[in-house]
Amino acid sequence: MENIKYPDPSQWNDLCQRPTEDSTKLEADVSQIMSEVMKNGDEALVQFNQELDGVRTESIKIDLQNKEFNIDPELAESIKIAEFNISKFHAAQKIEEEKIETSPGVNCWRKSVPIEKVGLYIPGGSAPLFSTLLMLAIPAKLAGCKEIIVCTPPQKEPELNAIIGWTCKYLGINRVFLTGGAQAIAAMTYGSESVPKVDKIFGPGNQFVTEAKQQAQKAGTAIDMPAGPSEVLIIADDSADPEFVAADLLSQAEHGRDSQVVLISDSEEMIRKATAETEKQLETLPRKGIAVDALKNSRTILVDTLDEAMEFSNAYAPEHLIIATTNSNELAEKVINAGSVFLGNWSCESAGDYASGTNHTLPTNGYAKSYSGVSLDSFMKKITFQKLTKTGIDNLGSAIEKMAEAEGLEGHKNAVSVRFKKIK
Amino acid sequence: MENIKYPDPSQWNDLCQRPTEDSTKLEADVSQIMSEVMKNGDEALVQFNQELDGVRTESIKIDLQNKEFNIDPELAESIKIAEFNISKFHAAQKIEEEKIETSPGVNCWRKSVPIEKVGLYIPGGSAPLFSTLLMLAIPAKLAGCKEIIVCTPPQKEPELNAIIGWTCKYLGINRVFLTGGAQAIAAMTYGSESVPKVDKIFGPGNQFVTEAKQQAQKAGTAIDMPAGPSEVLIIADDSADPEFVAADLLSQAEHGRDSQVVLISDSEEMIRKATAETEKQLETLPRKGIAVDALKNSRTILVDTLDEAMEFSNAYAPEHLIIATTNSNELAEKVINAGSVFLGNWSCESAGDYASGTNHTLPTNGYAKSYSGVSLDSFMKKITFQKLTKTGIDNLGSAIEKMAEAEGLEGHKNAVSVRFKKIK
Repeated sequence: MENIKYPDPSQWNDLCQRPTEDSTKLEADVSQIMSEVMKNGDEALVQFNQELDGVRTESIKIDLQNKEFNIDPELAESIKIAEFNISKFHAAQKIEEEKIETSPGVNCWRKSVPIEKVGLYIPGGSAPLFSTLLMLAIPAKLAGCKEIIVCTPPQKEPELNAIIGWTCKYLGINRVFLTGGAQAIAAMTYGSESVPKVDKIFGPGNQFVTEAKQQAQKAGTAIDMPAGPSEVLIIADDSADPEFVAADLLSQAEHGRDSQVVLISDSEEMIRKATAETEKQLETLPRKGIAVDALKNSRTILVDTLDEAMEFSNAYAPEHLIIATTNSNELAEKVINAGSVFLGNWSCESAGDYASGTNHTLPTNGYAKSYSGVSLDSFMKKITFQKLTKTGIDNLGSAIEKMAEAEGLEGHKNAVSVRFKKIK
Repeated sequence: MENIKYPDPSQWNDLCQRPTEDSTKLEADVSQIMSEVMKNGDEALVQFNQELDGVRTESIKIDLQNKEFNIDPELAESIKIAEFNISKFHAAQKIEEEKIETSPGVNCWRKSVPIEKVGLYIPGGSAPLFSTLLMLAIPAKLAGCKEIIVCTPPQKEPELNAIIGWTCKYLGINRVFLTGGAQAIAAMTYGSESVPKVDKIFGPGNQFVTEAKQQAQKAGTAIDMPAGPSEVLIIADDSADPEFVAADLLSQAEHGRDSQVVLISDSEEMIRKATAETEKQLETLPRKGIAVDALKNSRTILVDTLDEAMEFSNAYAPEHLIIATTNSNELAEKVINAGSVFLGNWSCESAGDYASGTNHTLPTNGYAKSYSGVSLDSFMKKITFQKLTKTGIDNLGSAIEKMAEAEGLEGHKNAVSVRFKKIK
């Protein structure tokens, strides 16, 4: 980790930069995969499974009805606890809005309606990300999406990871397809013989998946949010526990070589201790190699005051923000840009990653300035309705006519005028 | 308008197609403009004003403080009525969510926080779209965005249209910049000497603006939604007034040559009458030429039942949906995909375009399947917070450890383990 001391605000912009990759080649490669799937459907998907995942799949669709999945009972219990909390938090996001009579005889309202067809992408790779399945499938179910499908890369025996299979069955998700990477995103964008075209695609992935989602969006399929490498920013004062701080930094650093962690403090002592503790804990991590690379992109920043630390955090707009200070509640009020905020010494990021109930699909790469994390809202759209009575148009009509005329839209005006004629 | 009778569901997909344009050349042209502005800032903007708008602007920034704008008092009164209704409807969208204790000692909540910097694009062209200014600036103000800027193309004397100027002053918007088209979007994406870089860009525009917004999004600046030509779908039965139906079709058709209007009915008589009435009213429209072209892209569809009409509408996912039937309330319950819905004979689309209170920035081109129109939410993001007490992590910790382990993320597990050590 780079150690920065009392940076001048003019340096902040540089300190807010994330590790970047050149994506020019990527764009063309992904575009190639997308059009391959568009043209050849399942045949292309089967071929990519062989080429890219090294797995010979007979069929892209996997029939869960007749399959049993056995997993460690303690893990099953843990997943059930997480499911309970995630459901509770997301169910509370359901709201009914009232009708508003904006002027006499003019009633307007909004209605939340589930997006009909959603596709959840669950990466494979080094580990089966069943936690992401929970984070996406639970709000999709609660929203009432009619068609919820899951795409996940095939494995070598069994084709579908048992924990993913178990979790799908537990959540009542029956439509699972064995396809991964950019080709899975392509399948959900264009549809194939097996995989249905969806209205919106959710889920994380590597740079191929991220680029494919961008291209899907351009092709007319909505996506949850743009993605970048995962990151955490920790604001800690002398009251924080350096051992906790180090563990939290490392829990983020082990995500990927391109992850970034930032520790800001008003205490040089805390930075020194947390850094030493990070070095120590690093040695015990199975994913040490990944964490070491991530720490190379990472920084500690010493500042004068915790308010300055908070200001920097708002400029950085972290995906995860841990505030481990005595005044954490007070600082929390000053958060302007962040994906998810963890307050106090006992709120580790892993709690939110797995089981506290909040969603772990969050805006990275500074997108927290303008995007929210995934929530129940992400699986619904709000449709506005209005009903004007005869009185309503009689009252409001002249204003509409006047405005339409000033915009040079006589047809708009006429839609009122023909009604006026019938009233008068 | 093309007349379709009793189409087979297999034809629906074709009937849902919108007029399309080739955008390959556009992409390169816009990309050129974007990088020009990124490199040369204000200098490029001034030059584009000269080249593309034919206006010599001394400065991009316009000082509203010392300017007076005089407009027709009746128009001013109409704008004030619209402002009242739009404010009332959008203010009601403000909600406070409660803290949820998902399990003992685990408190999670969401907080809506305004997006700090937003840029509103108000097109010039044939008319000053002050209604769009109302639709974007009012929710931005209500949300509490700290920096609200407006970009609009310069005119020849006065540089700024008086109605736009008056509306800005009335709404308390002081930061207005004279730049239009793709170059305005570029300025808000990258910032220039005058124009600040924003976090999110809102507003309609021609195909250059639309493409520029796509490129802005790729460069990391959020946008309100992808855009396409405007459209209306009307479901009418025998109870509808053909004169009203025709006027509503034409109020949409006059928007642009690429607009599309669709009339669906279970009554051949209604289609015949409304078509004849459309031909008649068309003759009186100043924007007849535009409407004629739009009608070439347009259709009437005769179906067996109103339920079938509603099903087609959901497949089409119209930006505007007018339901002029005796059972309009009942059909309204069956709307799955639409931007904004107008119920009954007296609810013309122009009401929502200008003054009823609902927003007129809506998803087109089938995007209503997955996107909502602009609302207060569009100017805010929701940040999740959580606070676990010692009891909280003690209760939930084992589940987190178990799940992290199963995902092969020992660092995530360790963030809990180090805390367990201190508790026990």
